[in-house]
Amino acid sequence: MVAEIIAIGTELLMGQIANTNAQYISGRLPDIGVYAYYHTVVGDNRERMIACIKNALSRADIIITTGGLGPTQDDITREAVSEILEKPLVSDARCLADIEAFFKRIGREMTSNNIKQAMFPEGAVIVKNPNGTAPGCIIEHRDKTIIMLPGPPNEMKPMFDNFIMPYLAKKGDLKLKSVYIRTFGIGESALEDAIEDLVSKQKNPTIATYASVGQVTVRITARYSEEEKADDILKPVTDEIMKRLGDKIYSEENKELYEVVCELLLKKKTTVSLAESCTGGMISACLTDYPGISEVYLGGVNAYSNEMKMNLLGVSEKTLDRYGAVSEACAVEMAKGIQNRTNSDIALSVTGIAGPGGGTKDKPVGLVYVSLVTKCDVWVKRLNLWGDRSRIRANTTLHALDMIRRYLSGLEF
Amino acid sequence: MVAEIIAIGTELLMGQIANTNAQYISGRLPDIGVYAYYHTVVGDNRERMIACIKNALSRADIIITTGGLGPTQDDITREAVSEILEKPLVSDARCLADIEAFFKRIGREMTSNNIKQAMFPEGAVIVKNPNGTAPGCIIEHRDKTIIMLPGPPNEMKPMFDNFIMPYLAKKGDLKLKSVYIRTFGIGESALEDAIEDLVSKQKNPTIATYASVGQVTVRITARYSEEEKADDILKPVTDEIMKRLGDKIYSEENKELYEVVCELLLKKKTTVSLAESCTGGMISACLTDYPGISEVYLGGVNAYSNEMKMNLLGVSEKTLDRYGAVSEACAVEMAKGIQNRTNSDIALSVTGIAGPGGGTKDKPVGLVYVSLVTKCDVWVKRLNLWGDRSRIRANTTLHALDMIRRYLSGLEF
Repeated sequence: MVAEIIAIGTELLMGQIANTNAQYISGRLPDIGVYAYYHTVVGDNRERMIACIKNALSRADIIITTGGLGPTQDDITREAVSEILEKPLVSDARCLADIEAFFKRIGREMTSNNIKQAMFPEGAVIVKNPNGTAPGCIIEHRDKTIIMLPGPPNEMKPMFDNFIMPYLAKKGDLKLKSVYIRTFGIGESALEDAIEDLVSKQKNPTIATYASVGQVTVRITARYSEEEKADDILKPVTDEIMKRLGDKIYSEENKELYEVVCELLLKKKTTVSLAESCTGGMISACLTDYPGISEVYLGGVNAYSNEMKMNLLGVSEKTLDRYGAVSEACAVEMAKGIQNRTNSDIALSVTGIAGPGGGTKDKPVGLVYVSLVTKCDVWVKRLNLWGDRSRIRANTTLHALDMIRRYLSGLEF
Repeated sequence: MVAEIIAIGTELLMGQIANTNAQYISGRLPDIGVYAYYHTVVGDNRERMIACIKNALSRADIIITTGGLGPTQDDITREAVSEILEKPLVSDARCLADIEAFFKRIGREMTSNNIKQAMFPEGAVIVKNPNGTAPGCIIEHRDKTIIMLPGPPNEMKPMFDNFIMPYLAKKGDLKLKSVYIRTFGIGESALEDAIEDLVSKQKNPTIATYASVGQVTVRITARYSEEEKADDILKPVTDEIMKRLGDKIYSEENKELYEVVCELLLKKKTTVSLAESCTGGMISACLTDYPGISEVYLGGVNAYSNEMKMNLLGVSEKTLDRYGAVSEACAVEMAKGIQNRTNSDIALSVTGIAGPGGGTKDKPVGLVYVSLVTKCDVWVKRLNLWGDRSRIRANTTLHALDMIRRYLSGLEF
């Protein structure tokens, strides 16, 4: 089964946002044997939208549109599809009631232009939107399936996962199954070097690597017809890659590093506290993204100034005078300081120079110290990171999280 | 002039990366009077790539491809364009020398498959790639321009900015200029209601609205031929919209809310400290993303547990017992607590229930208190937010930032 994903919205063509919806949807489709051959983006223009959807109907079995279902005048996806399929727009009473209820829930007045959000081409199956006012729909028309979803990713994703995926799963034939191995602390070319022989003889499964800040993910994908066979195809290659990459691997389940760390903390019931300088709360924001983390995450201090390092964390003035805020000694005192105040099992601190200003010859931009202390031990790691401010801060966050992972997994730093 | 941007690569269709190249390119084109009407993504498949490029040639003046210029067997953009234009691939000697020099510079051996990277359709103008091995090219063919660029954004962007933009600028005739008005605290449909008459009679300038969590941006775009005229076209409509949306507007320059807040803090030399519970460091992470903010941002406490609220912020046990951690009283004590410890001009606190667990009938998920204190005054805002954990946390962060903006701008909360 071939799908085409059409993202609708002039804001995409003006470059204000990236088309992450197509990325999300086409990342999920192969699991159910549906392949996207094209992504298209078209603006809020009736004529071009119609041409675009017609073109997709000529080359794909399943058309998934995102966007253009809002209440405003430039939201015309419903109208375009209605015209192409020659099915009039009809209002769905239950759908309208849902929209009214939604406005009540968020305590805002519903305006009359929201009424059109309950209108869909005749015969459409409505897909509820628990997180917004724009429902979606599925239309079966001759041998084609047309699916319309709203544009905001936080609305589109749960609708796609909970309704569209199960619906389409019944249609797929040949299937793909992928394993994602996620690593931290090894460069993309070093990683590729380590598995080059496997990559060059790949056929089924296929192997691909892709890199983001500090991390490389290896995707191993098998084509299969029966579920059992998929694992038989995947296992030998996956096992070999895992053997070679060893403890650089933090997840074999495509989890984020912070999720892995939070799961470990909760499983081991290890309480943790944080003292952040250059990351200014980013590590804490990561941990607190995980529901239920309050069981083990006690709290943190974002000590941006020297005064705060002294007042809130008890870093000594002597240390700051002698070694400066970006130093091994200060990192250790910060970690010990927050541990004293929270009595956590482990405490982690970060101090560094994220730039663009503040660097010197001895302490250049990108110099960062990360310290982890337990009730008995003290570790400090010195990092020399490159890139701009946001890259250095993001990479520092990952290094800090990985240090906690390694400690909890009994690995060396 | 109409452009179509074609991103090439199966990794895009598998959802491994988002098509940020199209976003970047189409964000730049309007400055020189070129409009993208479509973005397309196609995989490393010869037949579909050719169909896709032919389709683009039928509806656009300028075709810009990104990707598929690498050294491996699945990189076939050159071959596809050569076939469509019926221009044979020829090797460029200077280009080959550049590729050899690049490998020398990074200390790696050049493999024979890199030779094909110096081959382009006859008559192509080669575009150098200072950051990688894949040069790009520009081909003028009848009344169309075909531009091929490599896929990695760090290679593509400087080539586009330094060579392609100046080249295309000469072709542009009619130009676009946009103003972006960013608002917080007004829903998309309410906003459109407020400006509906302007939207419905729009012609030049055009008006579009688009929403993200808690925020709505209004884009006003003028088509013009001379620079002075653009502002004449924009000003009456922009002024009217600004009058109607009033203090919901936080930027007329397309800035992020946190940037506006940081600029205000620095301009007014107002020091600030934070006490975060449910946002767990997100507000702090936002502020510290701004270079130089250490002049006014003193620090913060991420007090996730009740103990931390008492130990680090001095919230009284009585308050927590009587009113709970998610209460007006606790929010105020948190803000006063961090202010006492930092002596900041203003202090802001956040406490709430981000979910999915932890909600009760009296205190449901989404209930959040934000408090702002100065040396003389105390304010608390009660919020009832909706959505999942990450939406509630993101929206809380925006509410907190907006409260600081309103205080610093002398506006009511």
